[in-house]
Amino acid sequence: MKKEAYWIWYPGDWEVWLHQHVSVKREMRQVMFPPYWRMDYHYISVQFIYEYELDEPEEVFFKADGDFSVYIDDLDNGRFNDERITLPAGKHILRVSVYNNERVPSIYAKGKTIFTNDEWKVSCYDNQWKKPGSWKEVFHSPETIPSRYQLETKLEQPIEIEKRGNGYFVDFGKETFGFLQLIGIKGQSEIAVYYGESKEEAEDFEHCILVDHEKLDSSLGESYTFPQSRAFRYVSIVPKEKDFHIGDVSMLYEYLPVSYRGKFRSSNEQLNQIWDTSVYTFHLNTREFIFDGIKRDRWVWSGDSYQSFLMNYYSFFDQDVVKRTLIALRGKDPVHAHINTILDYSLYWFISMYDYYVHTADKEFIESQYDNMVSLMKFCLDRRNEKGMMEGIEADWVFVDWADIDNKGEVSTIQILLYKSLDSLGKLAKIIGKEKESEYYLELAEELQLRIKEYFWVEDKGGFVHRRLDGQLDEKVTKYPNMFALLYDTLDDADRLKVKKQVLLNDDVQKITTPYMRFFELAALCEVNEQEKVLDEILDYWGGMLDLGATSFWEAYDPKQKDAEHYEMYGIPYGKSLCHAWGASPIYLLGKYFLGVKPLSPGYETFIVEPQLGGLEWMEGTMPVADGEVEVYMDKQQIRVKATKSGGILRSYNGDVSYEKEIPADGTELLIDIEG
Amino acid sequence: MKKEAYWIWYPGDWEVWLHQHVSVKREMRQVMFPPYWRMDYHYISVQFIYEYELDEPEEVFFKADGDFSVYIDDLDNGRFNDERITLPAGKHILRVSVYNNERVPSIYAKGKTIFTNDEWKVSCYDNQWKKPGSWKEVFHSPETIPSRYQLETKLEQPIEIEKRGNGYFVDFGKETFGFLQLIGIKGQSEIAVYYGESKEEAEDFEHCILVDHEKLDSSLGESYTFPQSRAFRYVSIVPKEKDFHIGDVSMLYEYLPVSYRGKFRSSNEQLNQIWDTSVYTFHLNTREFIFDGIKRDRWVWSGDSYQSFLMNYYSFFDQDVVKRTLIALRGKDPVHAHINTILDYSLYWFISMYDYYVHTADKEFIESQYDNMVSLMKFCLDRRNEKGMMEGIEADWVFVDWADIDNKGEVSTIQILLYKSLDSLGKLAKIIGKEKESEYYLELAEELQLRIKEYFWVEDKGGFVHRRLDGQLDEKVTKYPNMFALLYDTLDDADRLKVKKQVLLNDDVQKITTPYMRFFELAALCEVNEQEKVLDEILDYWGGMLDLGATSFWEAYDPKQKDAEHYEMYGIPYGKSLCHAWGASPIYLLGKYFLGVKPLSPGYETFIVEPQLGGLEWMEGTMPVADGEVEVYMDKQQIRVKATKSGGILRSYNGDVSYEKEIPADGTELLIDIEG
Repeated sequence: MKKEAYWIWYPGDWEVWLHQHVSVKREMRQVMFPPYWRMDYHYISVQFIYEYELDEPEEVFFKADGDFSVYIDDLDNGRFNDERITLPAGKHILRVSVYNNERVPSIYAKGKTIFTNDEWKVSCYDNQWKKPGSWKEVFHSPETIPSRYQLETKLEQPIEIEKRGNGYFVDFGKETFGFLQLIGIKGQSEIAVYYGESKEEAEDFEHCILVDHEKLDSSLGESYTFPQSRAFRYVSIVPKEKDFHIGDVSMLYEYLPVSYRGKFRSSNEQLNQIWDTSVYTFHLNTREFIFDGIKRDRWVWSGDSYQSFLMNYYSFFDQDVVKRTLIALRGKDPVHAHINTILDYSLYWFISMYDYYVHTADKEFIESQYDNMVSLMKFCLDRRNEKGMMEGIEADWVFVDWADIDNKGEVSTIQILLYKSLDSLGKLAKIIGKEKESEYYLELAEELQLRIKEYFWVEDKGGFVHRRLDGQLDEKVTKYPNMFALLYDTLDDADRLKVKKQVLLNDDVQKITTPYMRFFELAALCEVNEQEKVLDEILDYWGGMLDLGATSFWEAYDPKQKDAEHYEMYGIPYGKSLCHAWGASPIYLLGKYFLGVKPLSPGYETFIVEPQLGGLEWMEGTMPVADGEVEVYMDKQQIRVKATKSGGILRSYNGDVSYEKEIPADGTELLIDIEG
Repeated sequence: MKKEAYWIWYPGDWEVWLHQHVSVKREMRQVMFPPYWRMDYHYISVQFIYEYELDEPEEVFFKADGDFSVYIDDLDNGRFNDERITLPAGKHILRVSVYNNERVPSIYAKGKTIFTNDEWKVSCYDNQWKKPGSWKEVFHSPETIPSRYQLETKLEQPIEIEKRGNGYFVDFGKETFGFLQLIGIKGQSEIAVYYGESKEEAEDFEHCILVDHEKLDSSLGESYTFPQSRAFRYVSIVPKEKDFHIGDVSMLYEYLPVSYRGKFRSSNEQLNQIWDTSVYTFHLNTREFIFDGIKRDRWVWSGDSYQSFLMNYYSFFDQDVVKRTLIALRGKDPVHAHINTILDYSLYWFISMYDYYVHTADKEFIESQYDNMVSLMKFCLDRRNEKGMMEGIEADWVFVDWADIDNKGEVSTIQILLYKSLDSLGKLAKIIGKEKESEYYLELAEELQLRIKEYFWVEDKGGFVHRRLDGQLDEKVTKYPNMFALLYDTLDDADRLKVKKQVLLNDDVQKITTPYMRFFELAALCEVNEQEKVLDEILDYWGGMLDLGATSFWEAYDPKQKDAEHYEMYGIPYGKSLCHAWGASPIYLLGKYFLGVKPLSPGYETFIVEPQLGGLEWMEGTMPVADGEVEVYMDKQQIRVKATKSGGILRSYNGDVSYEKEIPADGTELLIDIEG
């Protein structure tokens, strides 16, 4: 194996550092708006260790991000911090201390045989030695210092610039994110920039969320790039001085380079546009971490991420952003509050870990996070009531959904998520050889599942009720617990049918109006083969946003609202995010339930393709299956499938009868005649 | 009560921030040498909260160390960061978010009725609201920003400057600490400075511990102050260029302003010099925190501090430095290793907390540290073996003393310290009203005390043996457990006598050669009324250092060593610290056991003065008794005592008979004729 050097750090610390760094970029009209949760920090002083054996002395190049000192064995009074240090021959323990209180302490060393890599160990001086963190594909030269990490940028032009006074009103044609640029400026002036995801917002100087105020002076440079990247489609540029001139306006689009591996086309042009807009929405939010929305929070939220991870497996399949996001969400011990302060969001984190393993088979990451899973689960289990159920206590926020629901007491959805979390942790523990712990969690999961049925299932309502309060059943049925019960496959066939008819397809049950919960609702409908209904819903709901001119999908959408009403949320005029990751769920629905691509074993070692047209004339697409791709075409006559890796099975239906056939591993096409 | 504004922060965070800041100043020949233990960091994002009620709007001035935003009630989208904000009338909740990833986030606000003070609460967003940290005597104006805190400096001149080449060899006359200054420089040159606590060290360019290399250029300024404060008495100043000239050399002595409240004089001139040198040694080490030694480590060590705190109560009585040091030592959760990685050092921390309460009656500080005590004790108790004893496990360092002793297995001294820690925590818990927890810890303490006697006491040896290994008694008797048993008053009179004769005064028992353990040894001898012997030992041991020219007391002193042998330690020529806090123990011995001043109830609400000449002709001194002072004079005929506060009792002896008399509270003198 060719050895090469790359930067290493205390595991998780670069992600924790980057997370705090980006989390405080949220502003409300240029005033800081920090997260509602504890922001953790990297260890500022760490030590790296590497045991070597050399036949002859070797000169090694060292570069650290921070102050560093090198010594061997226990000779800690003989320390060096030169750029090049000649290490003595023989068997020695090399130690490198690094201190940095502003950026994550990291080290890069390169000799003829000695390199920083994951054979080194690192400690924060707590008597534990760990495999270091790294991102070898990116930070593998002395110049690529981890703390200098930045997203890429690309110059973009507006589609329309309208002169207003001696300023401009500019339209970039679609939702975007980046650094506004003014070109060819002349004179000196204070200048105000009002950003808008909507035209209305950029024109409402008093209420738009994002603004910039700068003093510009052309004698310092004829073009100016604003220092903060912001989300917008429109901008109003308003110089104070009349004799100040701006030649042109552009922007540096800031983005994470990803591969658009998931592709989808169909006979329905609006559906194609929904796919494209979903992927664009999702890409805008897939950055250092996967954010909730790009205009306002720019924060990492666990429930939002849970869905985003699944969308990612059907689009970019970017493992690194998933890992970064999971590490950032979890933060450091001690756990004193739920992730994002939200009870359900702690639970989604466990399920996300399990989903990550299912899609990637990355056992190493699971191992690195195991202690974090155990301590967060301990926090959760310690907060159960005497019935073994979790309810919101102290300052816990029980979210479930933005909707008119009361989440006081034992909420059935929460118990189902806890069941799934325990089940996930139990399975992951087994995978990394923690048999005893695995049994413990799986037993808890099983017990809880029985109790959920006993407590919340109401036979004549054909489903689960929303909650119990003070030991009393609240008779209100909501879709939430029933959707999750379907998604987590905890019901027998008879109950599935009841839930489908009496809850999911029952117009008397409270409707869901956030794209967030529509994700689960529509996925659940697909689980009971309601693709045709789901297609209608997608076209109606997401199509509805497109009809209103959306170029990215929203945080919330209520078809009954009118005009600028759509932009209001949280009691402020433009509070709503018009580019929210959870708005992009058609990616997942179309990839998993229409093209029908799903892993059968971890990392798609085996996988199934069971396409369903759901009312379309035809569809075609490509989906990532870990390191391979599968291409699917289907119309009413035939299915054609090609894959670049082995393990695929095509399942097709003729009425109620299903047929399974292996997909060739050599890339040749498998064609099935449906009516044959 | 007059209200005034002062800076507030998350409790403990300024101390934790300052601790990491000073801990990384250790250098070995200009190469960083960070601490062996985890360095914690402040919370970078915190929120302050204050509920107010105003009859009319009030303009409040805000100044933050960090980015901040202010909002009221839950209107977090309406945020302000102006210097002056007018708060609306009525009843509101004022919130201030502050973020700072480099320095501790803190805030100062001042209005007509609204001020930052300890009526505010603060959270690191972990759902817990705490009383904020502050140092109101020092940080009470907009300009006194906590993160700009610095010790004082004072210009000092050398006693001798010797020209060597075009450089100098300089003697400052005594051990000192500060910033070297070169005055009247001419020309350009690289310059090297070699510092020495001894002449030999400053002349040994290859091996001295502290060096500075700088490029100087008189065109940038005719005097130069070196940026790092260092410990030294001597310096060699060696310019590289022949045509470079230095006019004069001085230094800025850097120190913590303290009051020399403890005073001592006696008929023995060398003892007086020992007192003065002890106080000076102790002052040099009493800084941002109480350090171990000023040349090398400049670190905060719990065992060293435990003694230093006691010395402080008999000299400066600086409560603030004790609190800072206790907070810094404890750091943050989670606890994964012992304080300073040393098992005994975790235990000394509990006893230090108790001692602090006994001397100050500062219940508020105990309350603020209670959770920290509980979690550290949990860590300790979780590491007991099946016999309920602590031994070194994993990477624990069991120190006890720098001596030829084997500390593997169950070390009796450790169990005695654990007993005293449990007893201390139990008593402190009771004081702050945690009755149930108090009982729990006190019961554990009592059980352990019985077990210690049962396991380690060997009747025919008249004392405790050093340890058990694998269930077998190691028959070796050391002074350590027997000293602590005396100090912590766990023996009956008969056993005390045995320990005194068969162990402490037994020449066959291994001698103690560190000032560190001599502290406990001599205190224990005083506990059994061996003041005369102790006086001889002080004159012999500390007098021995003075005879060798010491101007401050050392980390270790072995009278058998010769010349530069004295300076060697840790396998390097000048490894030994010649100014070590634990070298200053005569302060405590003379104050507590000769002048005989001791608190009887917390904060010296009542206190006793029982002077003992111990062979001196006469002695006199002043000792702090919390906010008061007591003056004592004694010779062979009479005792005279004056106090500035009530609660004092003078106890005098006539042979074996003791007499007690109240010391007047009005400052008038109490005179006792001893032979009367």
